[in-house]
Amino acid sequence: MAHQTVGHTARPGLPDDPRAGVAAPSPSCPVEVTLAALRGRWTTLVVRELLRGERTFTELRQALPELSDKVLSDRLAHLTGAGVLVRSRRPGWPPRTRYALTPRGRRLGPVLQALWDWGAEEE
Amino acid sequence: MAHQTVGHTARPGLPDDPRAGVAAPSPSCPVEVTLAALRGRWTTLVVRELLRGERTFTELRQALPELSDKVLSDRLAHLTGAGVLVRSRRPGWPPRTRYALTPRGRRLGPVLQALWDWGAEEE
Repeated sequence: MAHQTVGHTARPGLPDDPRAGVAAPSPSCPVEVTLAALRGRWTTLVVRELLRGERTFTELRQALPELSDKVLSDRLAHLTGAGVLVRSRRPGWPPRTRYALTPRGRRLGPVLQALWDWGAEEE
Repeated sequence: MAHQTVGHTARPGLPDDPRAGVAAPSPSCPVEVTLAALRGRWTTLVVRELLRGERTFTELRQALPELSDKVLSDRLAHLTGAGVLVRSRRPGWPPRTRYALTPRGRRLGPVLQALWDWGAEEE
């Protein structure tokens, strides 16, 4: 009501939040790490497919028919580098390479859900 | 174990999920809507500042000292267009324009939390 002290007040709800320390964009900021993993057209759709289970390259192409081989290869390499998925080679003949989410990759499920929920809301 | 029928099997866990229908990147996909709102360097940091309360332009600049006036103006315009924040002009003299999150903008809190949590995890 009267004077407010600004600058040294505690931040309600954000007491020891480490986000308080991020004052400029940084690739090591956790929010940036996640956004970087999800970056690129098709990336979230590839993750969604793999949340349903392991897939071969061909199965991914069938699920996303407008996606080119080149872009799918790029996205799979990107997601592998981000620790989201792994290639696994099944023994036997013919050899079948499958792509599967890592445990970390499966934890993108709730992240995609949060992104979906916000975007699906009425404004 | 034996033959698997592929293609017409129900998707366990995703029965009526509307995401099933998104087969190509689309700006109207809710995930894309949210990622588009958060796009751009500094954008998430500006939202974080406003999650702490209304701010004037000058207060935002002080909280993010490496952010230039031009980029801050751009980000505020972008977030206004995305329905995340509104400008409010307080009556009185001198006039003070403040930036505040809309209810929709405040609901970005859990989204940023989900992005943070995933990126902060050990791989």
